[in-house]
Amino acid sequence: MTVTVRQLATWVEGEVVGDGERVISNARPLNEARSGDITFVEDEKYMSAWHDSHAAAAVVNSSVPVNGRPLIRVRDPLMAFAKIVQHLHGITHPHAASIHPTACIHPTVIIGAEATVGPHATIGEGTIVGARATIHAGVSIGMECRIGDDVALFPHVVLYDQTTLGDRVRIHANSVIGADGFGYRHHSGRNIKVPQLGSVEIADDVEIGACTTIDRGTFGATRIGLGTKIDNLVMIAHNCQIGKHNLLVSQVGIAGSTTTGDYVIMAGQVGVADHVHVGDRVQLGARAGIHKDVPADSRMLGAPATPDREQMRIIVSLEKLPELRKDIRKIKHHLGMEDE
Amino acid sequence: MTVTVRQLATWVEGEVVGDGERVISNARPLNEARSGDITFVEDEKYMSAWHDSHAAAAVVNSSVPVNGRPLIRVRDPLMAFAKIVQHLHGITHPHAASIHPTACIHPTVIIGAEATVGPHATIGEGTIVGARATIHAGVSIGMECRIGDDVALFPHVVLYDQTTLGDRVRIHANSVIGADGFGYRHHSGRNIKVPQLGSVEIADDVEIGACTTIDRGTFGATRIGLGTKIDNLVMIAHNCQIGKHNLLVSQVGIAGSTTTGDYVIMAGQVGVADHVHVGDRVQLGARAGIHKDVPADSRMLGAPATPDREQMRIIVSLEKLPELRKDIRKIKHHLGMEDE
Amino acid sequence: MTVTVRQLATWVEGEVVGDGERVISNARPLNEARSGDITFVEDEKYMSAWHDSHAAAAVVNSSVPVNGRPLIRVRDPLMAFAKIVQHLHGITHPHAASIHPTACIHPTVIIGAEATVGPHATIGEGTIVGARATIHAGVSIGMECRIGDDVALFPHVVLYDQTTLGDRVRIHANSVIGADGFGYRHHSGRNIKVPQLGSVEIADDVEIGACTTIDRGTFGATRIGLGTKIDNLVMIAHNCQIGKHNLLVSQVGIAGSTTTGDYVIMAGQVGVADHVHVGDRVQLGARAGIHKDVPADSRMLGAPATPDREQMRIIVSLEKLPELRKDIRKIKHHLGMEDE
Repeated sequence: MTVTVRQLATWVEGEVVGDGERVISNARPLNEARSGDITFVEDEKYMSAWHDSHAAAAVVNSSVPVNGRPLIRVRDPLMAFAKIVQHLHGITHPHAASIHPTACIHPTVIIGAEATVGPHATIGEGTIVGARATIHAGVSIGMECRIGDDVALFPHVVLYDQTTLGDRVRIHANSVIGADGFGYRHHSGRNIKVPQLGSVEIADDVEIGACTTIDRGTFGATRIGLGTKIDNLVMIAHNCQIGKHNLLVSQVGIAGSTTTGDYVIMAGQVGVADHVHVGDRVQLGARAGIHKDVPADSRMLGAPATPDREQMRIIVSLEKLPELRKDIRKIKHHLGMEDE
Repeated sequence: MTVTVRQLATWVEGEVVGDGERVISNARPLNEARSGDITFVEDEKYMSAWHDSHAAAAVVNSSVPVNGRPLIRVRDPLMAFAKIVQHLHGITHPHAASIHPTACIHPTVIIGAEATVGPHATIGEGTIVGARATIHAGVSIGMECRIGDDVALFPHVVLYDQTTLGDRVRIHANSVIGADGFGYRHHSGRNIKVPQLGSVEIADDVEIGACTTIDRGTFGATRIGLGTKIDNLVMIAHNCQIGKHNLLVSQVGIAGSTTTGDYVIMAGQVGVADHVHVGDRVQLGARAGIHKDVPADSRMLGAPATPDREQMRIIVSLEKLPELRKDIRKIKHHLGMEDE
Repeated sequence: MTVTVRQLATWVEGEVVGDGERVISNARPLNEARSGDITFVEDEKYMSAWHDSHAAAAVVNSSVPVNGRPLIRVRDPLMAFAKIVQHLHGITHPHAASIHPTACIHPTVIIGAEATVGPHATIGEGTIVGARATIHAGVSIGMECRIGDDVALFPHVVLYDQTTLGDRVRIHANSVIGADGFGYRHHSGRNIKVPQLGSVEIADDVEIGACTTIDRGTFGATRIGLGTKIDNLVMIAHNCQIGKHNLLVSQVGIAGSTTTGDYVIMAGQVGVADHVHVGDRVQLGARAGIHKDVPADSRMLGAPATPDREQMRIIVSLEKLPELRKDIRKIKHHLGMEDE
C-alpha cells in the first residue's frame, strides 16, 4: 500500500510543506525510519536525529524548520502520526462478537449485544455484561458484577464478586479487581481476619494496566473516578476513593481509606499512607512518600515528601553535607571547641 | 429483612443503650449510612461524622457517649459490625463441592471430601488436595503439591511443582508460588542459570494477597510461618524463612535467604536485603530499607534504616539543612574563614 | 538410590579428598543436611556450619580445609552440587510433546516439532511457535507472535499481539508482555489515549520472572537484549531498549524510552526515569533512583543517585546531622550570633 504525503496530510488535517506528491510506503518512528518512510518529529530536541534520518517525510509541529524534505504540519505530531500508522497498517479490530464455546457462563448472566467472550473465560451468577464488551481469553468474572458497554478485559483479568465497571473501561492482562483488603485484628497472639464485605466501583473511561490490584472495600466500595488512568503493578488498597482524571504511574502504592481529588498525578513508585487526602491537581514526583494530607495544587517530592522547591534545596544541600561536616570541624578547631 | 437493635445486640453479644426496639433495615459504614441503617463508630475520631450521620443506630465501644440514638456497646465495634453485615446480607458461601467438568486433573491426584475445583483449573500428577478446599477458576497446580484442608485458591493462582500449603491457607488471584529463584553465575560474559531445585512450604493459616510472588528455594524450601499474612504485589525471594504471625504489607520486597522472627511487621514498600535476619517483633516503617540484621523488638525507619527515633531526628534536621548551610556560611564569614 | 563420593566426583569432574568409598544417600543444603547426605560449602563463611553439620561429605572449593570427612573439590561448589542433586533425584523434564485437546489454537498457527501446548492455552491467528517449545496451562498468546525454539512459557503468561521471543526464552507465570504503554495526552480536561501500535522483541536466552510486565512500544518495539535476566514484579515501560546480559532484580521499574548498555545490574526496587541512558556495566544499588544519564562503569547509590562512594559519605554524614545541628547552635552561641 502506497500513498502520497498530500493524501496523508488530508487524512490528519495537516498542512503540506514541500513536495506533496512524494510517495510514502511505510510509517516508522524516528529511530527506526528507513528511506521511503514517513516519520514524526515531536519537537526541536529531535532535530539532529531528523537530519540524520533517511525518512522521506515527517509529521511536525510549527517549531520544526523546513529542510528540503516534505513536511506535514499539525498541532500534535504524535497523535497525527498514530492516525497515519493505523491508516497505513489498516489496523482494525474486527468485532467477531461471539461467545466462545469453551467459556463457562452461568445461565443467569445477561450479555449485551455484539459482546465477545473469549476461550476459557468464566462469568458468575447474576452478572451483567454490556454491549460490545470484549472479554478476552481466560478472564474470570465473579458473581453479581456489572460490566458497562464497550469494556475491554484483557486475558486473565480477575473481577471478584460484586465488581462494577462503567462504560469504556479497559483493564489489561492479569490485573485483579476486588480481592480482599489487608485487614486483620491482633487477638491473643494471632491475626484475625476482618471480613472484607464491600466491593469495587470503577467509573467510565478508566484504563488500568497489567498486574495491578485494587482491593474491595471493607463494608462500602473502593472507588476509581471517571477517566482516571492507572499503569502496571499499581496497588490501591481497600476503601480508597480515587478522584477523576488521575494519572497513577506504575508501581504506585496507595494504602487503605486514602482519598484523592481530581487531576492528581503520581509518578512511578510513589507511596501514599492510609487515611490521608491528596488534593485536586496535586503532582507527586517519582517515589514521593506521602504520610499526611496534601493541599490542592501542591507539587511534592521526596520521602517524607515536601513541596518540590524545598526538596530541591534539601537535595542540593545533602550533596554538600560531607563538606559542611568538614567546615564545622574546622570552625570548632578554629574556636578551640573540639571537646564540646 | 428487618430486625431490631436488640436482636442485633444479642447476635453480637453487645449491650443495648437506648431504644432496643428501633427497627433496622440495613448496615452501612459511617460515610455511606442512610436513615434506617445501623452503622459503627470505631473511636472518638469519628464522633463528628456520627453526629452528622442519618444512621438510626450504631455499634460503638465504651468511649462513644450516648446522643439520643440507640447504641450497641461492644469491645470491638468493627468486628461486631462485620458480623451484623454478614447476618443482614445473609452472606453464606454455599459449598457446591463439585469438580467442574472442564478442570484437567491428572488421574493420580487425590482430592479430599467436599472439595471444589472450578472451571479450567489444572492439577498435576501426584498432587493431594485436602478436604473442603476451594480451587477457583483457572488455578494451575503443578506436580506433587500438598494442599491442606479448607484451603482457598482464588482464580489463576499458580503453584509450581512440589509446593506445600498447610490448612486454611488462602491465596488471592494471580499470585505465583514456587517460580524459579533469581540465581545466575557470571561465566565468560554470560549469566548461567543456577538450577532452582527446592520448593515452597507455607504453614497453616497463612493468607497471601493478589499478584504476590514467592520463589522456590535453590535446594531446600522457602518457608512462610504459621499465621503470617502477606498483602498484594509482595516479593519473597528464594530460600527466605519467614517466621510466624508476620504482617507484610503490599509491595514489600525481601531478597534471597533472608529470615524473619515471629510477629514481624513490615509496612508498605519496605525492602530487605539478602542474607539478613529481622528479629522477633521488629516493626519496619513504610519503605524502610534494611541491609543488615535487625535485633528483636526494634522499630526501624528510613533507608538505610535506623531506629525510628534517630530517623525522626534526622528527618527534622534534614528539613533545616538548607538553613544550617547558610548558618555555616555566615559563621565562616564572621570568622574570616571563607577561603578554607 | 545410593552412590559413592567417588562416583559423584566423577560426575562433576571434581577431585576426591579423603574416603571416596563413603556411601551417600541424599544431597541437601548445609542447613538441612542429615547424616548420610552430601552437602556443599560455598566458601569459608560457612565453615562453622559445616563443622556443626551431620552431613557425611561436602562439595567444596579450594579454600575449605580437610576436617576428616570426604570432600569433593571443584571450582564452583554450587553449580557442582546442583548437578549432583539433579543426578540423585533423577530430575528429568520428560518432553511429552503433545498438544492438549483443550488448547484453543487458530488453524493458521504453525507449531514446531516436539513442542508442548498445555491445557486451556490459547494461540492466536498467524502465530509461529518454535521447536521443543513448552507452552504451559492457560498461557494466552495473541496474533502474529513469533516464538523461538526451546522457549518455556509458564502458566498464564500473556503475550499480546505481535510479540517476538528468541530461542530459549523462559517467562515465568503470570507475566504480561506487550500490554499498552501508559501514554495519554491531556486535552480539554480529559486524558486521551495515545494508541500503542508497536510491539515487544525479546532476544535469545532471556529469562523473565513471575508477574513482570513489559509494555509494547508506541510505534516501534520495546526490546530486551540477548541473555538479559529479569526477576519478578519488574516493570519495563514502552519503548525501552534494554541491552545484553543485564540483570534486573525484582520490583525494578524503568520508565518509558530509557535505554541500557550491556552488563548493567540493577538491584531490587531501583527506579529509572524516562528517556535516560544507563551505560555499559553500570551497577545500581538497591532502590537507587536514577533521573539522568549514567556513564558506563559507574556504581550508583541513593535517590537521587550519586556515585556510591559519595553516597556512602552522605549517608555517614546524615547519621551525624542532628549532632552537627547542635554543634552549629553551640558555635553561634559561642560567637553571639544566635539572632542571625
